[in-house]
Amino acid sequence: MKTPPLSRTAQAVKTSIIGELLTLAARPEVISFAGGLPSPEGFPVKALADAAQKVLEEKSSRALQYSVATGEKELKRFIAEHETRRGVPTTSDEVMIVSGSQQAIYFAAQAFVDEGSTILVEAPSYMGALQSFDLVRPHYQTLSSDEEGLNPAAIGEECRGARFAYVMPTFGNPSGLTISLERRKLLAEKARELDLWLIEDDPYGELWYDREPPISVRAFAPERTLRLGTFSKVLAPGLRLGYVCAPKEVIAVLSQFKQACDVHTSTLTQLIAAEVLNAGLLDGHLPMVRKIYKHQAEAMLAALEEFMPKRADISWTKPAGGMFIWVTLPETIDTTELMKKAVANNVAFVPGAVFYGVNPQKNKLRLSFVTVPTEKIRTGIAALAKVVKESL
Amino acid sequence: MKTPPLSRTAQAVKTSIIGELLTLAARPEVISFAGGLPSPEGFPVKALADAAQKVLEEKSSRALQYSVATGEKELKRFIAEHETRRGVPTTSDEVMIVSGSQQAIYFAAQAFVDEGSTILVEAPSYMGALQSFDLVRPHYQTLSSDEEGLNPAAIGEECRGARFAYVMPTFGNPSGLTISLERRKLLAEKARELDLWLIEDDPYGELWYDREPPISVRAFAPERTLRLGTFSKVLAPGLRLGYVCAPKEVIAVLSQFKQACDVHTSTLTQLIAAEVLNAGLLDGHLPMVRKIYKHQAEAMLAALEEFMPKRADISWTKPAGGMFIWVTLPETIDTTELMKKAVANNVAFVPGAVFYGVNPQKNKLRLSFVTVPTEKIRTGIAALAKVVKESL
Repeated sequence: MKTPPLSRTAQAVKTSIIGELLTLAARPEVISFAGGLPSPEGFPVKALADAAQKVLEEKSSRALQYSVATGEKELKRFIAEHETRRGVPTTSDEVMIVSGSQQAIYFAAQAFVDEGSTILVEAPSYMGALQSFDLVRPHYQTLSSDEEGLNPAAIGEECRGARFAYVMPTFGNPSGLTISLERRKLLAEKARELDLWLIEDDPYGELWYDREPPISVRAFAPERTLRLGTFSKVLAPGLRLGYVCAPKEVIAVLSQFKQACDVHTSTLTQLIAAEVLNAGLLDGHLPMVRKIYKHQAEAMLAALEEFMPKRADISWTKPAGGMFIWVTLPETIDTTELMKKAVANNVAFVPGAVFYGVNPQKNKLRLSFVTVPTEKIRTGIAALAKVVKESL
Repeated sequence: MKTPPLSRTAQAVKTSIIGELLTLAARPEVISFAGGLPSPEGFPVKALADAAQKVLEEKSSRALQYSVATGEKELKRFIAEHETRRGVPTTSDEVMIVSGSQQAIYFAAQAFVDEGSTILVEAPSYMGALQSFDLVRPHYQTLSSDEEGLNPAAIGEECRGARFAYVMPTFGNPSGLTISLERRKLLAEKARELDLWLIEDDPYGELWYDREPPISVRAFAPERTLRLGTFSKVLAPGLRLGYVCAPKEVIAVLSQFKQACDVHTSTLTQLIAAEVLNAGLLDGHLPMVRKIYKHQAEAMLAALEEFMPKRADISWTKPAGGMFIWVTLPETIDTTELMKKAVANNVAFVPGAVFYGVNPQKNKLRLSFVTVPTEKIRTGIAALAKVVKESL
């Protein structure tokens, strides 16, 4: 059959070997540390069910109707107040609701990037963001980092002219690292100095274990920061609710993309979330979620300590929040190859190569500790350590 | 403040005067025939509330969790069976769930169109589709039509090389027209002859008044048709649920865009919809919705007959289903100008110019009869007729 060609954009989509590997890993007997699926124990089911009922009883004709591209006012107001309480004065018209923060990443790429224009990313960087960015065929340039995460002191004139810097300063995916207050301030200064937009992706900031992370980067450069948040980790990902806080002019641009792409995010899920959030659900709910995740992180760190070979060239990050541990193996090990052996041994992770815009490092891997119950974490890490030892 | 430039895509976004006019029309005293908002009377509130409760009781850990890009299997299965029953054999893997059919339009443009490549559109054509298409900066070419709608007999070699034809064959928005079975067959033949993709947008097909419309165009060229459907009109738009039926290879391409754009559509709303649909809700619900819309269409047609000036150069379509009437005024009248006077007289519509990819016709306007109750329809049409008379 003869058909017209696909667009160049569609042709730019990378079909990755990782996808195939993850499909292999979907067998029930595989203990998967690959997915970043939050633990269903942490879903506030009863509160959401009650809110759904209330919304459909009291305001069904609104909840089921078309809405506006920027989102429902109750939800935007909650977010504005929440950001303000956390130290960044924010008004509702600086907020837009999106269908998961992935969508804000996608719109930002569409709105700011032309083919071949430069964007600055961390190495490693969130793979879902790179996937969105790939569609606009940018030139990736890497931001320097060290063992404390992104190092803005190393950002110089070579970054001028980039369209934006995409960063995840808090409990990074995949690194697990959090940058200090000083680095946040310096990052904002550099963005101002070099005329950059900053995209601060913060899906995990609420998931701290013992100590609240430093204040948002947006606090130090609100005029040029798009701060992305999500309710996927603090409520539930199945709602598909995220948001972006940004200058009004940026919201105006992003909302045009929202309108053309899907008109608006589900009115029903927005109002359900607004209901539970404005009733103060998070105050009681977040401590519980933090406790679950801390417990699981500790279980995985303990298992790594117990089973992994003790060598200077094998190490991993110790996250103070979030969902991920980033493991460095000896440079002789390619984790994409290792994954095949791991799956054969009923354990899975995400090979590190997918987290790089350029120059993938092959000896890294990402472990998520939030999906698998603690008893299985130990079994899974033991299996992983076994295949690592065999590959040395 | 100095910031990097917006992308060329963002710069291509047209800020339309229509948007401003519609904002003016949002005053409560304005009777608006502009919006295509379904009547809330037609929302199956009780069924959706019960389904929400059931889903959150029985499968909360799935309903609140991440899902796959192509959609939930129960919902895809319903759609496949529904399409099959309507005469187009369809399997679940030929279906993808999207957040309203607008999103399928958007992804189709992204997947098939490069800057400057030709797409074929009707004149007039659905404005939301043109808005999505504009972002890829295509070359628009117009498909011929007559008083019976799109006329595929007039499609010739000049259309070869186009990426796709975007058509709404049933109760068109804004035309209200439906093309015959013969024209559907011929359209499919032409698409095959000229190696085109066909995008058959069918948001209103279930909203027939007296007689079911002819079978889907996809029946005659399933290998090259993307058929778009939505639950916005038969359930409720606030759910943001639409779908696309297409060859598996096309679904594979579209799902990559879905993944990069927003990962997947809300699992919760998908499972709620699957629950009511698989329980057979539509069998009882659709006759009720059809009756409401037929009644409102008749009210508007009667009011137009009663109040509009009787002249050969003033006419309107008589829809056999759907939500819209398309009015032609004398060529001396520019409906964008008329809209200002109309709003001052507390009535609103959508000026026709926005429904054209090229060569906007200025003497047309679109009326929606589904949002405003019948008693107000008469008042509103009387006000519209008054400003038309004053403009003659």
